[in-house]
Amino acid sequence: MGNSFGQLFRITTWGESHGGGVGVVVDGCPPRLPLTEADVQPDLDRRRPGQSRITTPRKESDTVQILSGTFEGRTLGTPILLWVKNEDFRPEAYSEMASKFRPSHADYTYQAKYGIRAWPGGGRTSARETIGRVAGGAIARKILRERWGIEILACVVQVKDVHATVDPETFTSDKVESNIVRCPDSSVADRMIELIEEVRSAGDTVGGVILGVARGVPVGWGEPVFDRLEADLGKAMLSLPASKGFEIGSGFAGVHLTGAEHNDPFRKLNGRIRTTSNRSGGIQGGISNGETIYFRVAFKPVATVMQEQETVDIHGEETTLKGRGRHDPCVLPRAVPMVEAMTALVLLDHGLRQAAREAGIPAPVLSK
Amino acid sequence: MGNSFGQLFRITTWGESHGGGVGVVVDGCPPRLPLTEADVQPDLDRRRPGQSRITTPRKESDTVQILSGTFEGRTLGTPILLWVKNEDFRPEAYSEMASKFRPSHADYTYQAKYGIRAWPGGGRTSARETIGRVAGGAIARKILRERWGIEILACVVQVKDVHATVDPETFTSDKVESNIVRCPDSSVADRMIELIEEVRSAGDTVGGVILGVARGVPVGWGEPVFDRLEADLGKAMLSLPASKGFEIGSGFAGVHLTGAEHNDPFRKLNGRIRTTSNRSGGIQGGISNGETIYFRVAFKPVATVMQEQETVDIHGEETTLKGRGRHDPCVLPRAVPMVEAMTALVLLDHGLRQAAREAGIPAPVLSK
Amino acid sequence: MGNSFGQLFRITTWGESHGGGVGVVVDGCPPRLPLTEADVQPDLDRRRPGQSRITTPRKESDTVQILSGTFEGRTLGTPILLWVKNEDFRPEAYSEMASKFRPSHADYTYQAKYGIRAWPGGGRTSARETIGRVAGGAIARKILRERWGIEILACVVQVKDVHATVDPETFTSDKVESNIVRCPDSSVADRMIELIEEVRSAGDTVGGVILGVARGVPVGWGEPVFDRLEADLGKAMLSLPASKGFEIGSGFAGVHLTGAEHNDPFRKLNGRIRTTSNRSGGIQGGISNGETIYFRVAFKPVATVMQEQETVDIHGEETTLKGRGRHDPCVLPRAVPMVEAMTALVLLDHGLRQAAREAGIPAPVLSK
Amino acid sequence: MGNSFGQLFRITTWGESHGGGVGVVVDGCPPRLPLTEADVQPDLDRRRPGQSRITTPRKESDTVQILSGTFEGRTLGTPILLWVKNEDFRPEAYSEMASKFRPSHADYTYQAKYGIRAWPGGGRTSARETIGRVAGGAIARKILRERWGIEILACVVQVKDVHATVDPETFTSDKVESNIVRCPDSSVADRMIELIEEVRSAGDTVGGVILGVARGVPVGWGEPVFDRLEADLGKAMLSLPASKGFEIGSGFAGVHLTGAEHNDPFRKLNGRIRTTSNRSGGIQGGISNGETIYFRVAFKPVATVMQEQETVDIHGEETTLKGRGRHDPCVLPRAVPMVEAMTALVLLDHGLRQAAREAGIPAPVLSK
Repeated sequence: MGNSFGQLFRITTWGESHGGGVGVVVDGCPPRLPLTEADVQPDLDRRRPGQSRITTPRKESDTVQILSGTFEGRTLGTPILLWVKNEDFRPEAYSEMASKFRPSHADYTYQAKYGIRAWPGGGRTSARETIGRVAGGAIARKILRERWGIEILACVVQVKDVHATVDPETFTSDKVESNIVRCPDSSVADRMIELIEEVRSAGDTVGGVILGVARGVPVGWGEPVFDRLEADLGKAMLSLPASKGFEIGSGFAGVHLTGAEHNDPFRKLNGRIRTTSNRSGGIQGGISNGETIYFRVAFKPVATVMQEQETVDIHGEETTLKGRGRHDPCVLPRAVPMVEAMTALVLLDHGLRQAAREAGIPAPVLSK
Repeated sequence: MGNSFGQLFRITTWGESHGGGVGVVVDGCPPRLPLTEADVQPDLDRRRPGQSRITTPRKESDTVQILSGTFEGRTLGTPILLWVKNEDFRPEAYSEMASKFRPSHADYTYQAKYGIRAWPGGGRTSARETIGRVAGGAIARKILRERWGIEILACVVQVKDVHATVDPETFTSDKVESNIVRCPDSSVADRMIELIEEVRSAGDTVGGVILGVARGVPVGWGEPVFDRLEADLGKAMLSLPASKGFEIGSGFAGVHLTGAEHNDPFRKLNGRIRTTSNRSGGIQGGISNGETIYFRVAFKPVATVMQEQETVDIHGEETTLKGRGRHDPCVLPRAVPMVEAMTALVLLDHGLRQAAREAGIPAPVLSK
Repeated sequence: MGNSFGQLFRITTWGESHGGGVGVVVDGCPPRLPLTEADVQPDLDRRRPGQSRITTPRKESDTVQILSGTFEGRTLGTPILLWVKNEDFRPEAYSEMASKFRPSHADYTYQAKYGIRAWPGGGRTSARETIGRVAGGAIARKILRERWGIEILACVVQVKDVHATVDPETFTSDKVESNIVRCPDSSVADRMIELIEEVRSAGDTVGGVILGVARGVPVGWGEPVFDRLEADLGKAMLSLPASKGFEIGSGFAGVHLTGAEHNDPFRKLNGRIRTTSNRSGGIQGGISNGETIYFRVAFKPVATVMQEQETVDIHGEETTLKGRGRHDPCVLPRAVPMVEAMTALVLLDHGLRQAAREAGIPAPVLSK
Repeated sequence: MGNSFGQLFRITTWGESHGGGVGVVVDGCPPRLPLTEADVQPDLDRRRPGQSRITTPRKESDTVQILSGTFEGRTLGTPILLWVKNEDFRPEAYSEMASKFRPSHADYTYQAKYGIRAWPGGGRTSARETIGRVAGGAIARKILRERWGIEILACVVQVKDVHATVDPETFTSDKVESNIVRCPDSSVADRMIELIEEVRSAGDTVGGVILGVARGVPVGWGEPVFDRLEADLGKAMLSLPASKGFEIGSGFAGVHLTGAEHNDPFRKLNGRIRTTSNRSGGIQGGISNGETIYFRVAFKPVATVMQEQETVDIHGEETTLKGRGRHDPCVLPRAVPMVEAMTALVLLDHGLRQAAREAGIPAPVLSK
């Protein structure tokens, strides 16, 4: 329970750090899509540890294998099993975690919920779990791009108190990938990188905010009243490790405007109905309106710090714990492909659901 | 598709404004629970229009009837059908909406998605849809309270730029209900009310922020990796009309702290494992940790303003539209019971899921 | 839990005998379908008690009302609430059931499972529950007919040891409705009716077999490996009250043939791939192959007999019970529309699922 | 879509013949269950090809590996990935299938549905897919046995026209495994084996019937109205390759009795409510009544025969095809563990669902 996401394009992730590997089963992928490992690996490489000096130095190639669901380079419409082996085992780095709960980590709650816990590497709570998401999301993203021309992008817009200025309509993948912090605003990217290096030197960590966008989403995706598009996007983002907040369009800041100021007036542009502003974030009444969808996701500072902290052991006795091992000082750069992947998964699922609806309309009887 | 919420305690809402009524089917309610309309009506009354001078003056008694699922005042374990008739029909007040799209409302997207739209009263996009949620949530809330002693509360903590100071641990229902804006901070409640009256006089509207809390939730609720407790809470809140953002615990503000500052140290208190701070908001790794769960939800200003606005008609031609009829200048006071209801629905579902997990453990074989 | 059926076209039935009524919520109905009560009532009339001298003489008009989901005679794409009031209350006829369990009925198991039971009229175990199915199925059937030209039919082919000869390919609705037992083989229909009257006179009951068919189903519906078309049809039929068996195509009798005898050879007919026999029953590998789908459903004799029977009371003490009230001596004639309704629900859901699959294929890239 | 089974204990199978392997993800397994490959392998060995002279001589060890979900020999409560590599690749044996459709096989319908088909070994339509089911079912079976003392068994009771006499209450696993056809009636087992060898010599195949039983199921499992226990069992069995029919308890034969003859009288036995006969098959009103659950499943003769048969090629042109390769002359012996596995999966899921229901009852308020 709880390890599947999506209705019609559904992923189920599996795997722990320090076990036989991690991966995903993708059920509901349309058949006849050209698909090889090369379609998935680039996003995994962007998620990979050790990719830059501001990520954890752990060495894992995260090489993906497709075990099922394709034939002669095309999808069969059957479940696709994607597998990444675990490579860099260092259980000894985690031995203290066997008996102590890391503050603000999931050690205590997992132990309490399940009565057991794979402490080496954090087990299922490791960020390695997101490999399955990124792999499944890469497939969804490809379908969205090739079938509907949808472009999905994310980038870092804030690290602690360093804010970037990024226009959701125009920033490019090239700009995002032009620096290791994945911030397209080159005026602040260096400062973000420096900040991350500073806190790492101090044995500390930082968090920040990621902007996610989807451009070219057709009008009409989203399933009110509960599966509104922003509700499913919100759930997707809040299911990512370390995320603490989600806002669509104007979000929390929109509260400062009155209704007359906040509303997006409609206009006619090139024969299409458009809005002159986009405080709605591309979604109205839970349904895409054809404008660019954009949202922001808050990620807390990484819980594992290289400083002595107060905690309790598994017997409930008070003790202290100092982080060891190789950890990210900031999850943001590696979380960018995760945000993109989850966005793709939500959108494709909703696109297929709307397609099913339209397919059931007795066409000859009535037109829109 | 999209009108059901929950796995084991599942509600399905139905109904439009200006039709035969609105309501909900509750499937999965435990049997033998004492239940009559009197258990549900109080929360509906708190959601009702016309309850105060800062809500819409529409007159609807919103009297609930139970059509199925109970026998001799107790639940049967079968589906419970709750129905509220529509009363205050004024389709003429909406006639202009038949041919024009209200800016930042769902008129355009519904028309585009479905090719048809019940324009009187906004049809399914009316806030009347939330009656089913509040009714179903009232049942969930009762079970949580009587079975686990869980207390669920919400209150208004911000209206536009007026901020309240509210401690999630201590504010009471009595304080919330002591004023019509449902803000327990009496030092600002009057100012909030004045502000709402001012913007209404100007034909405008305002939004704000609601704080939701759940006290007494057992350790161990939440289903990683996708159905994390905060992910499902986030989805629930973002599925409410006019909501634009959700943050759990420290949320977006937590980004300004370093990891060492942000972490919640564990300690032993009265023989239980507790945290000395609660920036996690009662959830770690997607699972409740026994501390108070708290989160904030942003609601945008109401889209229907009594001012002339630019828009297009259903033929895509540019025109203007001025709001008419009886609308809320601010949804916040009436949204408080909605937030509570959705919180209860999420928590009960997760409580039952965890119970199912524990039931499957071959007890004699192994203990925690 | 357990009161919903379908993924994309989903019904949730609700209601007990002797309560506020029975009904259904239909979620996922395509928008813009012309729909009024007149589309649903005819199938309900075929299910209604008191329709002939071989059904229960209970008088209920079973008049359906649509409370939501339509506007100006067309569906909105939002949940459709269909409601039938209960009319003929006679709780006194069931008073003995309050304290005694009817043999082979659901009284004991409901009491054991839920710890409570609505004994008047059997509560939720009453055949009245199927009203919601028939109502929802009538909508599905209309869509299948108008959108894909699919014809769904069922008829009685066996009552106790009286067997009819019916060709799944050719029997007509007119023939089925030409007699009160709903058997299109006029050579045995009278004998079936006599038999039912005989057993009723003796205070006893009989069962039989219904044949269900679907003609014109496109090739390619069905979702292996678990949601095979025959698996979902089987589940649908076995969820009907009193059903004890299901077989597709050659079924249990097919076991008497060898593989060479049983296989359906392919041939080319009018440019299409067809089979020269149809022992597969229109489904191969869980997917429709374009031939007529046909299956048989066994219904046991009605459990309520007007004879003294050994049983126990709610305290577990042995006693006897003799059926009273107005019951069907044979469910078969009234079960025909139930079988049709469930068939329609399964097929429409699968048709929409296949449509969603096809919608996701990047068309320009590859053709079949 | 369609590759998952279960709500609370959910398996998702994946894999094709002639690819990277086959397997299953099990989500919802309770934590702390001792589990190693040795718990799963025995059932896989009973399903394995080449196990006797009446199964296909294909050589595959079907050795299972657990890649995730356990730690130090116990389950974590996280997804369990079970993987069996494919070993005996002989695509050349299937080359003719690349261009011709085998009669009564799934070649044509898969090609029509997906527009692509993994023809070597039948791809996803291969019986190898059931490895994932048997592996997942072995875990469910262990939990049912250790947590509730439930015993699940199946056996062959008919091969073509050779019928066995088997009492669902008393036959034992030892008796089932005492011969290679898995029929506990030793008076006919040899005749069944001979018959299978005869038809194989003739290049032909046979089908038959399997009896499935579950002993010791608690009263109260099953979720009316749609997820009745027999409905879910029926779906499970009809999702198995080559199954054509399912009947619970008296099944189709029960139609020959009157109600008075068919009903199971209740009595009091050792302080418990029991029935003196069991035509209900252990389920009444969709809910287990504490008696032994038993049902029968019809399997058609294997479609692949070593005789020339009429068919069409992928261009729709008429041709002939003669089976080649190594196939089972009768699936029954190998289907016995499949029936057991699916039975276990259905029962555990329902047991957990009922546990969730009971957990939600505010205990101090009311007792049964």
